[in-house]
Amino acid sequence: ARPRVGYFFTGKTGSELLTEKLKKFKVGDFQSVPIVVDENVSAYDAIINMFLEDVGTIFVTDQHSKLVGLLSRKDLLRASIGNQDLSSVPVHIIMTRMPNIAYCSADDLLLDAAQTLIERQIDGLPVVEEKEDGVEVVGRLTKTNIAKALVELGRDEHV
Amino acid sequence: ARPRVGYFFTGKTGSELLTEKLKKFKVGDFQSVPIVVDENVSAYDAIINMFLEDVGTIFVTDQHSKLVGLLSRKDLLRASIGNQDLSSVPVHIIMTRMPNIAYCSADDLLLDAAQTLIERQIDGLPVVEEKEDGVEVVGRLTKTNIAKALVELGRDEHV
Repeated sequence: ARPRVGYFFTGKTGSELLTEKLKKFKVGDFQSVPIVVDENVSAYDAIINMFLEDVGTIFVTDQHSKLVGLLSRKDLLRASIGNQDLSSVPVHIIMTRMPNIAYCSADDLLLDAAQTLIERQIDGLPVVEEKEDGVEVVGRLTKTNIAKALVELGRDEHV
Repeated sequence: ARPRVGYFFTGKTGSELLTEKLKKFKVGDFQSVPIVVDENVSAYDAIINMFLEDVGTIFVTDQHSKLVGLLSRKDLLRASIGNQDLSSVPVHIIMTRMPNIAYCSADDLLLDAAQTLIERQIDGLPVVEEKEDGVEVVGRLTKTNIAKALVELGRDEHV
């Protein structure tokens, strides 16, 4: 006999459906626009840029627009309490540089990127495309994007 | 006739179960230890403290240990590029001060706190207990805590 309600047991519990939905979230669905500066701009200009754009992480590129480094508020705050004139220090001196940078691609799972942010104790990841001559920055994934994903899950009424 | 599997239709879809689980998450289940300084310490000492404790937000209290303000990396970076001697500027001059601070309690829903972090564009919230003579800081809720909640949901196999 067929059941009298229009539902069939799929062998999946509610939390399995949740896990499946969450596991489908991609970095590309939540990423923000990247803010990029050239490696030769001064630390002072990078800080001004950070305030103008209101971001916590700025990416640093070379003359071929390839990713060479990353500047967090923490990097800039560390530089600012050193005895240096920030307007004469180029960012490539104080940035965290390749290959010591964690990055991700738009196709990566959001959960994996969140795990990386937690493990590396960083605020943001560059979203990149790998080319023959280096990596190009196409986006920015921050803890704010992760928080938005959580809030979206909480609001969602339909799988 | 009873169904032949040990499952009964509850009228809830997978995503309703998800929403219920996520809606039960409390701030208190995910909060971190708060880092607190007195309102009379210097901005320089607050920055050093921030690096030693490796946090992005420090809370500022008065002589009665009540919350009077908050210092983010952004507040300190802004102060550091001003023409001030950071070791002679007390933090109460540069902090974001009450009542312009968003805060939460350990009993609040994590989703509501996440929403506040997103809307106010801040990195962390003090978790407080309200007393007759002010609010006491008992915890710190950051975007890292939110990211950990998302990863925990993604790993969960059981409701």
